[in-house]
Amino acid sequence: MNFEYHNPTHLIFGAGTLSQLGEVARRYGKKALLVTGGGSVKRSGVFDRAVASLKDAGVSVAECSGAEPNPRITTVRRGAKIARDEGCDVIIALGGGSTMDASKVIAAAVLYDGDPWDMIFHGQEKVYIPTTALPIITVPTLAATGSEMNCGAVISNEETTEKSFMQTECLYPQVALLDPELTVSVPKNQTAYGVCDLITHVTEGYFNGIDNTPIQDRFAEGVILTAMEYGPKAIADGSDLNARAQVQWAATVALNGWVQAGGGGVGFPVHMIEHTVSAYHDITHAAGLSIINPSWMRFAAKANTAKFVQFAERIFCLSAKRPDDLECALTGIDHFEEFLKSIDCPTRFSELGIDGTLIETYAKETLRIIHDENGKLPGRPAMTRADIIEVLRSAL
Amino acid sequence: MNFEYHNPTHLIFGAGTLSQLGEVARRYGKKALLVTGGGSVKRSGVFDRAVASLKDAGVSVAECSGAEPNPRITTVRRGAKIARDEGCDVIIALGGGSTMDASKVIAAAVLYDGDPWDMIFHGQEKVYIPTTALPIITVPTLAATGSEMNCGAVISNEETTEKSFMQTECLYPQVALLDPELTVSVPKNQTAYGVCDLITHVTEGYFNGIDNTPIQDRFAEGVILTAMEYGPKAIADGSDLNARAQVQWAATVALNGWVQAGGGGVGFPVHMIEHTVSAYHDITHAAGLSIINPSWMRFAAKANTAKFVQFAERIFCLSAKRPDDLECALTGIDHFEEFLKSIDCPTRFSELGIDGTLIETYAKETLRIIHDENGKLPGRPAMTRADIIEVLRSAL
Repeated sequence: MNFEYHNPTHLIFGAGTLSQLGEVARRYGKKALLVTGGGSVKRSGVFDRAVASLKDAGVSVAECSGAEPNPRITTVRRGAKIARDEGCDVIIALGGGSTMDASKVIAAAVLYDGDPWDMIFHGQEKVYIPTTALPIITVPTLAATGSEMNCGAVISNEETTEKSFMQTECLYPQVALLDPELTVSVPKNQTAYGVCDLITHVTEGYFNGIDNTPIQDRFAEGVILTAMEYGPKAIADGSDLNARAQVQWAATVALNGWVQAGGGGVGFPVHMIEHTVSAYHDITHAAGLSIINPSWMRFAAKANTAKFVQFAERIFCLSAKRPDDLECALTGIDHFEEFLKSIDCPTRFSELGIDGTLIETYAKETLRIIHDENGKLPGRPAMTRADIIEVLRSAL
Repeated sequence: MNFEYHNPTHLIFGAGTLSQLGEVARRYGKKALLVTGGGSVKRSGVFDRAVASLKDAGVSVAECSGAEPNPRITTVRRGAKIARDEGCDVIIALGGGSTMDASKVIAAAVLYDGDPWDMIFHGQEKVYIPTTALPIITVPTLAATGSEMNCGAVISNEETTEKSFMQTECLYPQVALLDPELTVSVPKNQTAYGVCDLITHVTEGYFNGIDNTPIQDRFAEGVILTAMEYGPKAIADGSDLNARAQVQWAATVALNGWVQAGGGGVGFPVHMIEHTVSAYHDITHAAGLSIINPSWMRFAAKANTAKFVQFAERIFCLSAKRPDDLECALTGIDHFEEFLKSIDCPTRFSELGIDGTLIETYAKETLRIIHDENGKLPGRPAMTRADIIEVLRSAL
């Protein structure tokens, strides 16, 4: 259990904290690039409130709207150009995970002369890893990706049909301003996807980590149990501010390193496979995760049964006969899949109208983007092309 | 649940990481003040290894040894003088919680012209709160206080028989270097005290926080369960490096804010009472906590029964008849006290030879140092003088 942990992001959490945005941004400069997504923040009035807070604090605003659900490198290029042209000092993301991811890469791209796609890990010979970025402030309007308090970002390239990530210290937001009131207008299906997304972040570390991580396991289980308790409440009644707050806090801690520190995660196979599939189909990330995760779990449980038994026992109160009780492990996974169904997340590709035609391509592409020294997809266990195909086929 | 969280400390964790000390310290300067305690680090050879690593990296060393188990303000003054005289750039704590606390206050005192006791909150009219300090590196040799990754410190004043704390942003160590190998030589009783100390840090937040903090509760319970599982293993076999690592990680996360963020803790009454008692008797901090905590729990369970029922159910697998089942809550506390006894921690003052003579004084002094607008000790519930006396008397 040798590891390092450092997360410099200053978190401000609470209902009504959006009004602090201007005062916070002023610490980082006089002009902000406000990055937004498809327009829901304008319809809800959140955009106007953010701009008012900034103007009150003497911070002027340039705008980059239209970050896509799977944010594109073209948007990053466009945002970086606006920030440069307008002389922005700070990048503010006002939106969901896609908007935040785009903003983080824009912040680094502003200070990089080359093309920002160089920074995204996509199998190229030499990845450009930036060491500086403009200050970033994240204001999530959706509880899901945890991007608000970590240093990762996922970007798509529509020209090359690629979707992959970057992750480096300078992408940590200076401030994550989390106002759960901003999430009350999120529709039921997006709320459910957020719950699925955050749980998948936790299960990836939990099942792909090293052994002997008792605290990390308890933390992970705590996030999952909380998301499973409050997620359905937030879906049932979007105006339940307490449920919204619990889900938002769960989403943040699911991927800010608290659960992962010391866990020694050797990969995030479900995410890597999903990225390839959604590069081809532009599906919602969490819908892809919801389909692939249970199928991957059934595959991985054969190799790592004890951990899946622990999951079954601690999350679903099942009782195993032995630590290697595969039947108990699989029953736990069934229960997990039932939970996903209960919040109307898809669990088969057919529900999204995706058939098996491209399965071989997804597997090949996934391994092209990332593979270990044996040519396998990192994870526990590491996966061959045949393994990936098996997991995808079981999810058709 | 409105709160802020920011912990900039860079954590390096793992067996053998002591060898990185020089390389880490070099980032902060050329001369380090190495602060140590009673000499165990010299006897164990850890001091020589630390100095060798520093010298190899070109960092020269000044020394301030002899930080007391309850570190004194005289030691802080002495350390600050050495650091100034020797032109130190960075303060390195090599020892237990006392050494780390002294080091943190020394780091601030070096840059403050007044007397460092001004910075310790002891009921004075105006507390001096520093905003800068020399860089601090903590290298704990004991898993206990969590001081390695937070911004608090507790200091005693032997002239005035006071013991109290300071807590401010600039005291966050730049780096916490945690090498569980350094803790394998800690004797059984100190190991047990460390386990008690870390658990008490968690219970203070858990029982004195606001309602509706499901994630924080799960995290807290996770730390307690881990400490109760691996603590006895580390006590039974000090060379069990895995148990040592788990206990050390538990001690760090018990007080680095991960468990507390959003919990809205309204005080730490057990600590405040213990500080007064140990200001008069120079007992080991954790021994005082071990005695006062169960007694305080029985007092607090009457007002906050549901939380103590949750504790009983989740930590000791008890089954409550109702959420306000006081009997179940009290049985949980009995089990907790039994655990403390099982690791040979005292649970009555008589075991330390302390009688009730000064009980009124402890209560009065506790309230002099800290009280709310109604003159009560902050906590859940807030405590009157009579309440404090009741808790202390039950622990005789």
